[in-house]
Order: sequence, then C-alpha cells, then structure tokens
Amino acid sequence: MVNKIEHIGIAVKNMDEANILFEKLLGVASYKTETVETEKVVTSFFQTGANKIELLMATDPESPIAKFLEKKGEGIHHIAFDVEDIFAEMERLKKEGFELINDIPRKGADNKLVVFLYPKSTNGVLIELCQEIR
Amino acid sequence: MVNKIEHIGIAVKNMDEANILFEKLLGVASYKTETVETEKVVTSFFQTGANKIELLMATDPESPIAKFLEKKGEGIHHIAFDVEDIFAEMERLKKEGFELINDIPRKGADNKLVVFLYPKSTNGVLIELCQEIR
Repeated sequence: MVNKIEHIGIAVKNMDEANILFEKLLGVASYKTETVETEKVVTSFFQTGANKIELLMATDPESPIAKFLEKKGEGIHHIAFDVEDIFAEMERLKKEGFELINDIPRKGADNKLVVFLYPKSTNGVLIELCQEIR
Repeated sequence: MVNKIEHIGIAVKNMDEANILFEKLLGVASYKTETVETEKVVTSFFQTGANKIELLMATDPESPIAKFLEKKGEGIHHIAFDVEDIFAEMERLKKEGFELINDIPRKGADNKLVVFLYPKSTNGVLIELCQEIR
C-alpha cells in the first residue's frame, strides 16, 4: 500500500512568477530547485506540512510538461505517493489492474525512484509512485 | 499561512466504481460518505498519511462538479489547505492579490468552513481553504 502523499506536481509556464505566487500562497519559500534532464523539466519544491508542492516547468518543447501545458494549460499535473518498496508496489498494482507508464522505475527529482500510472486506469488522475533512493 | 494539505478533491462520474478503484490504489477503504446539499455533490473520503483524498460526484447537472466533468473529464479537481483562522487567511491572501470565489466561508463536507480561490489567480489550480468548525 502507499504510505502517504509525497507531493503534488503542478505544471507552470514561468517558474519565477510561480515561485513568487506559491511563496505568497503557502507562506514559505521554495527550498530547492532541481533540473531533471531525463524529463526535461526544472522543478521547485515547497514544504507544506508532511507534503511537498513540486512546481514543474518544461525546458524543452518535447518535455511531457510542455505537452501537458499545450493540451490542458497550467494546473495540477500529478499526485505522487510515497512507497516503501516501489517494485513490490508496482507488482501489487499491476495485479489490481492498474497500468504502468514505465515498467522500470526512473530516477526522478529529489533523490527518488519514480514510476507513473496511466490516468485512464486511475479515474483520470496521473499518479506517481516514488521511493527514496537509500 | 496554510498549515498543510488537508485533502485533494477528485471529480468522478461513478462513485461505486471510484470507491473500489481508490481502495485498491491506496490500500485502505473509504471511511466516510457525505452529501453536501449546497454543492450538490456526494463525497467519499480516504485517509492517506496526514491527508485525505476526497472523491466528488455530482448529484445534479447544475453541480460545479457536473460542469467540471463536462469541461475537463474525470481527474483532480482541487487542493484544500487546512488553515487555523479562515477569515484571517482570506484577508492575508486578498492583500497578496489572490481572488476569492466566495467572500463568505461556506459549510463544506467533513465539518469544515470552506472558501475557494479563483484558479486564474493561482496558476490554474483550484485552491480551497478549510477550517475545522470548532
């Protein structure tokens, strides 16, 4: 099973403006900016309670975030759930009928192994599973 | 400032199917179903770590959720942040340039006073502030 919501990913067009906006909204500043080359995104993290808000800006027109922005505009992109053992959880969810976008976990932002589930198998919600790399 | 993410609201078409799906995904069952007459929705809550997932199904074609489903389909509808004093937080956010959808908090699901911010002032994200009714 999943432990908790690790973060909520939000697609933004302009990271500087979005950082200012979310700092005002949450009352805390971004504590980290990180580029994820494989996903062609820049990320910015805010801590709020036990969870994080992850802002995502595309660094390339081929980035999944660029495509999302084109199709849907700015807004919530995904929910990431923290799991203890990502491989066991992938197996469990596949048996339950969920479909994985990537069959092998990738290295994501924030020192995590990540895998995504197809929104068509999850009520239209893009779900990420992530496990801290130990 | 906001305390934490209280819940994530997800718009669904069929609550029975969605309840089964999210029980499989999260590994826990819905702990409560509640109808909110003012919003014309049925809600179903799942606890995951310190947060909740709130499924939302329209009970009327005029429900905001029915309109959301028509326009965007199933998926994440809003993020709700827990606040200590909703009136103080509304004042603070208005001063910061955010726009409120309702100027007077309404009674929401789960014994909360709630207010929503316009997504156009929050990077396309529908934000709810909620305060436990004490």
